[in-house]
Amino acid sequence: MLFCFSSVIPRTLSDEHKAVNIDHIRLYFTRKVFTKMVQQLKIIPLGGLGEIGKNMTVFEYGRNIMIVDAGIMFPEHDMLGIDLVIPDWGYLRGKEAMVRGIVLTHGHEDHIGALPFLMKQINVPLYATPLTMGLVENKLKRHKLRKSVTKVVINARERFTVGPFQVEFVAVSHSVPDGVGLSIDTPMGRIFHSGDFKFEYTPVQGSGPDLSRIGQLGAEGIRILMADSTGAERAGFTPSEQVVEEAFDRIIRTAKGRVIVTTFASLLSRIQQITEVAHRHGRKVALVGYSMLESVRVARQLGYLEIPKGVLVRSNTINKYPPEKVVLIATGAQGQPEAALARIARGEHKEIEIQPGDTVVISAMPIPGNEEEVSKLINQLFQRGAEVIYPPLAQVHVSGHASQEEQKLLLSLTKPEYFVPVHGELRHLKAHARLAASLGIPEDHIFVVENGTVLSLDENELRVEGRTPGGYVFVDGRGIGDIGARVLEERRQLSQHGYITIALSWDRYLGKTVGEPRIASHGFACMTADDSLGRGIKKKITETLDALGPGKSLKAIAGAVQEAVAQHVYQETQRRPIIDVLVLPIL
Amino acid sequence: MLFCFSSVIPRTLSDEHKAVNIDHIRLYFTRKVFTKMVQQLKIIPLGGLGEIGKNMTVFEYGRNIMIVDAGIMFPEHDMLGIDLVIPDWGYLRGKEAMVRGIVLTHGHEDHIGALPFLMKQINVPLYATPLTMGLVENKLKRHKLRKSVTKVVINARERFTVGPFQVEFVAVSHSVPDGVGLSIDTPMGRIFHSGDFKFEYTPVQGSGPDLSRIGQLGAEGIRILMADSTGAERAGFTPSEQVVEEAFDRIIRTAKGRVIVTTFASLLSRIQQITEVAHRHGRKVALVGYSMLESVRVARQLGYLEIPKGVLVRSNTINKYPPEKVVLIATGAQGQPEAALARIARGEHKEIEIQPGDTVVISAMPIPGNEEEVSKLINQLFQRGAEVIYPPLAQVHVSGHASQEEQKLLLSLTKPEYFVPVHGELRHLKAHARLAASLGIPEDHIFVVENGTVLSLDENELRVEGRTPGGYVFVDGRGIGDIGARVLEERRQLSQHGYITIALSWDRYLGKTVGEPRIASHGFACMTADDSLGRGIKKKITETLDALGPGKSLKAIAGAVQEAVAQHVYQETQRRPIIDVLVLPIL
Repeated sequence: MLFCFSSVIPRTLSDEHKAVNIDHIRLYFTRKVFTKMVQQLKIIPLGGLGEIGKNMTVFEYGRNIMIVDAGIMFPEHDMLGIDLVIPDWGYLRGKEAMVRGIVLTHGHEDHIGALPFLMKQINVPLYATPLTMGLVENKLKRHKLRKSVTKVVINARERFTVGPFQVEFVAVSHSVPDGVGLSIDTPMGRIFHSGDFKFEYTPVQGSGPDLSRIGQLGAEGIRILMADSTGAERAGFTPSEQVVEEAFDRIIRTAKGRVIVTTFASLLSRIQQITEVAHRHGRKVALVGYSMLESVRVARQLGYLEIPKGVLVRSNTINKYPPEKVVLIATGAQGQPEAALARIARGEHKEIEIQPGDTVVISAMPIPGNEEEVSKLINQLFQRGAEVIYPPLAQVHVSGHASQEEQKLLLSLTKPEYFVPVHGELRHLKAHARLAASLGIPEDHIFVVENGTVLSLDENELRVEGRTPGGYVFVDGRGIGDIGARVLEERRQLSQHGYITIALSWDRYLGKTVGEPRIASHGFACMTADDSLGRGIKKKITETLDALGPGKSLKAIAGAVQEAVAQHVYQETQRRPIIDVLVLPIL
Repeated sequence: MLFCFSSVIPRTLSDEHKAVNIDHIRLYFTRKVFTKMVQQLKIIPLGGLGEIGKNMTVFEYGRNIMIVDAGIMFPEHDMLGIDLVIPDWGYLRGKEAMVRGIVLTHGHEDHIGALPFLMKQINVPLYATPLTMGLVENKLKRHKLRKSVTKVVINARERFTVGPFQVEFVAVSHSVPDGVGLSIDTPMGRIFHSGDFKFEYTPVQGSGPDLSRIGQLGAEGIRILMADSTGAERAGFTPSEQVVEEAFDRIIRTAKGRVIVTTFASLLSRIQQITEVAHRHGRKVALVGYSMLESVRVARQLGYLEIPKGVLVRSNTINKYPPEKVVLIATGAQGQPEAALARIARGEHKEIEIQPGDTVVISAMPIPGNEEEVSKLINQLFQRGAEVIYPPLAQVHVSGHASQEEQKLLLSLTKPEYFVPVHGELRHLKAHARLAASLGIPEDHIFVVENGTVLSLDENELRVEGRTPGGYVFVDGRGIGDIGARVLEERRQLSQHGYITIALSWDRYLGKTVGEPRIASHGFACMTADDSLGRGIKKKITETLDALGPGKSLKAIAGAVQEAVAQHVYQETQRRPIIDVLVLPIL
């Protein structure tokens, strides 16, 4: 450090100089250099921009870093075999000691799911609201990390300090209770980060969004607004959760048999509503699926769910009750093949079987990319004889994200100097940016940037200062980051055409093969050694080997066979399986 | 035939007997037997029920079969490596000589795409409207079938005879011109088959749907209505194509650079509108993509497209014109990776490159299952700096299918005795059935059935008489139907975990391996022979072989190694690659 700036150590000190301690060395700089070096706040989104999920942002000032959220993303269709995607936090390598804390906006997987991976590398205090912390604890427990982590529970309206940052939690509405936006007072001014938000005027639970506080913060001056863009293509105002209750009341009141509802396990207000309606109409409620049971357990413990006594029963006792006295709440609203509802729909669930008269309610909308899976689920349930109700056929779901009018409201309350749309695919960020521009924010004060962009805020301006990796890190089985583009491309090719492996013995001295070659093949075709395709391949191998003669390297032999078989196979089938040739030399 | 019914040849004939000639043999039956045998019309949907695509229906009366449509379906995400899906027409095996003709409702792939495959097996006359036939000819030409097929061009309102069926083409509206519904007069009464339809009161081209004729046919009596269910979840009336023109006028008028529109190549009215608007604002139009060029060529030849002189230019000359004088119409509205727009979006197109100031208009909605691909396309175009406009941000597309109010209108005009919803996933058929029930059609007169269901209509009633295969036949490269569930499951496993193949030489007499085993692996992990995973596997192989001793069969050796390696690999990685062990014996 001293080396870097040695040329600017002043000979005489004046008011024009600033001093700073770095690693116990006191350095003096001219104001200009000091401003450039220290008096800038870096904001680095490592996730959540241009994608749905794995939200994570780094705030860095001097030698202090605060992280906001650390979420996972569910793999897209072309990320074959991948279990989870986590942010690439390579930027933090070597800076672990500078991280002062991790602040969480709410308890959804796309905001907290990567914590177990992150905290194995960077163990710093966690700051979150009570329910968010409850959900995080559950997660850390499963990864055997609970005891080693410092947890600081903060309520909305409370302020706390993380390094040079003063943070205040500001209540917003979302599809999990206790979600907050963040007012972050930094040496370069105030930043407002919305978290995932909507504005629910008539909340089913809790006290709703703290609009007046947001207005107050805005009146005092906000330099940057970072706001959730997920709903930026949707006109109007997201309807209140109240409308869902009316739909459920009608469905549960009139259903002649069981009602099976699927929704997000963390959407506690929905679960509250469903149990209340069920109780009103004299029905018992059973929860089905691990994450539903866990989420409800945590929420009841912390007082976020008030279920009347005697309503909840165990799912393995549900067949004791007449169908018209039963409501089931199950996981699997996104059509996830391993969740409870998908297993019920395939007839593979050990406790619940669809019976005539069942009504299934899909109380969710498919997250982009899940449309096909949800549609398959609906069709399978129909096929098993259930009546299926889903949006928009009935208003059994409202979004957890702000629509355009709410986004305009947030922009108007905060009146930011700069606007950085976050959380959403690029199309959503662009739509949100257009909206901000229509409210009069100058285009050069709106930053639509990608993950890994280093934004730098000083006293004068916000600007893009550089790039750092901000891509995907794939979690596959036990492997974290070991699967790269090459393996994915191989999986793609295998998924399309399969493979053929040929093994043969080679006598180096005679320059000929010994015995029959052996062939293994999967995913390519219904081929046997004796059908015309199998025989054709063997003939090609023999012809190629016969033409080779002695003196060839094993590599050359393998290459020649590989090429001849690939050509033959493409001619016969127009498919391009991966072909390996393993030549075993006879010694 | 004589054998089958010999027991019922009457000893004395009366009015109670019916005679029928079958294959030149005159047979007499009691009325009851005759009714059961001949006086029933079989309707067998082989495709288009419970899915989007591969529409195909068989109408069979006595020894006469008429086929309506023969389409393809595009593979779903889990049909790995499959190029196309065609209907399973195994029902027609042995009945080829009974097929009297194939009647086509319109020229979309999901209704005509399987013809080249079908007509190689069953070459009978084709009946279609002029444009449909033009599109079919193009297709047959590519499969070298054009000359061998008898083509009968029929206009709307014209009647023709196919075996015992009198068919009339009735104009409907759809997203390709010249689409028709079918009024089919059978010995068992009249059937109305809607084809793909909507009701466009103010068509951009042609004369619109023949509502009064449909009313007249309904007044005369319709026994079964088979109607398109695709839009059955959408309330209201599908907006007129006219609204799209207003959106395009505003976009093309105000765009400062090039406008690149993508839409379906067969949506000729849209192409007509875009070229007219471009001409109005002094822009040249170039077509990009093979199917766009072909579709426009056929349509202009047949007079279905009137493009003002001098408007169309070749896409390879487009850079000669200033950007504000250019409109491009490109294929790829569904995000298909090989289509023109996807290649442009990836920067891989040989003629067109996105430049700042370009406006791209997605004049289509994603077909269910394509949402992720279309979203990726939009994001990539934004990334390259284009402005992207897509529904619902602007009304640049309207559906080609009827919404609920049009479906109610068709039901009310035809007043059918029975209703069979067709064309759509099960959820759409169910929604359409609910709609029909709400108009007073008794529930037991509504048949929501699956592909392969044999419906039988006699003088008294419509009923389900049995099942025949109605599933998928996969086309993969040159293979038709050779890929089954096993290969697909292997491809799925390979796509998730890849494979490892191990080859080793085995000395049977010594009972030990000779030389080093060879390992090939793809799609599994970034493994080399020398990293810890590779070394671990080799060690496992050696240990297993050492423990075996002489006298073991090659199969037992392979099995033991396979099991040991699979266990080791799962322990280390939690992945389950396919593992083959090829043992080459030393002689």
